[in-house]
Amino acid sequence: MAVSNHKDTGKIPEPTLRRLPWYLSNVKLLKEQGCTYVSSTQLARGTGIDASQIAKDLSYVKLAGRTRVGYEIDTMVGVLEEFLWPKETHRAFLFGVGSLGAALLQDSGLKHYGLEIVGAFDVRSDVVGTSINSIPVFDLSELHERMRGSGVTIGVLTVPIGVAQDVTDLMVANGIKGVWNFTPFRIRVPEEIVVQNTSLYAHLAVMFNRMNV
Amino acid sequence: MAVSNHKDTGKIPEPTLRRLPWYLSNVKLLKEQGCTYVSSTQLARGTGIDASQIAKDLSYVKLAGRTRVGYEIDTMVGVLEEFLWPKETHRAFLFGVGSLGAALLQDSGLKHYGLEIVGAFDVRSDVVGTSINSIPVFDLSELHERMRGSGVTIGVLTVPIGVAQDVTDLMVANGIKGVWNFTPFRIRVPEEIVVQNTSLYAHLAVMFNRMNV
Repeated sequence: MAVSNHKDTGKIPEPTLRRLPWYLSNVKLLKEQGCTYVSSTQLARGTGIDASQIAKDLSYVKLAGRTRVGYEIDTMVGVLEEFLWPKETHRAFLFGVGSLGAALLQDSGLKHYGLEIVGAFDVRSDVVGTSINSIPVFDLSELHERMRGSGVTIGVLTVPIGVAQDVTDLMVANGIKGVWNFTPFRIRVPEEIVVQNTSLYAHLAVMFNRMNV
Repeated sequence: MAVSNHKDTGKIPEPTLRRLPWYLSNVKLLKEQGCTYVSSTQLARGTGIDASQIAKDLSYVKLAGRTRVGYEIDTMVGVLEEFLWPKETHRAFLFGVGSLGAALLQDSGLKHYGLEIVGAFDVRSDVVGTSINSIPVFDLSELHERMRGSGVTIGVLTVPIGVAQDVTDLMVANGIKGVWNFTPFRIRVPEEIVVQNTSLYAHLAVMFNRMNV
């Protein structure tokens, strides 16, 4: 369950949030190699991010380096892991068991990083009633009753674009607080709802374009 | 570092590239509904992007609206689809057949959007020699010979962070021109190599943080 235990850190800029996992993966490697302290200069070399930017980013999670020795790696790993992927998992429903939706149901890495998909919804009779990776697929008409007592706060959106907005509206009406949108459709939500856009196919388009020039 | 190496003909800013799929999905819907022309004001309402920004973005792909009638939808769909996902597919190898890697091998949507994964590599004896969704898994030591004549230009990186850089170096040494990096590790590549970062777990962290503040 989501618990508001980050209030003291305030609102961290999104670019910083996106860089924190880079620092974490970098220091985890250093830790494996037996390193105990790391300077921001070293971190800069490892991640390609400017050292002063790193210091600023880390200050958002109250990590400060010590003169000459730098950051203590154990502390840094602990703080960043707890901050980025709090121990409590967030429960989610997935909407749209097509090719991508089914693939995501099979990625147990999501659970490891705090997202537990406990059910999926679709409208096609050939998938409703089945289960994938032990996750049951329900008919979309059952959403209201399935939400009750489920503890689900997140909806993973992998439906065709033609119904992306309708399904989002339905989620929100049923109490979903965050939508992880894998469609290339720009969904509209009330102000208090969090949307995270991750369109794999849009990323592909960006990559192809960069490779062709 | 990669990603920003498009001095020659790369006139299209990355934010524009990321918005183009939103416009495309929006007009595809309108087209289904029988709409033939759309104004940038209407597009702005549908996507939440400023109308003048939309006009500017579309001008990069040589799409111009006509006074009073706006953009012709058929042309817009055609131009954007061809631009974003050119007809030729790009051939790719995937590296690291863990949970996420295996999930991606099962997403046939990738092929639909121009990425054909024709082989995968791992080092674990329990997966090497198997195949997933008819895609064979080879031992990493075979990369050099498997690259020959394969037409593969893209590497999909889904390995553990501890080997992300080594596997990237190996890819690049064997002629890979673009790396789709799903790890939270910030890989370093020669200037001419394109990197697209898509860390699902970093996106999760951003979403959790936004929901908690």
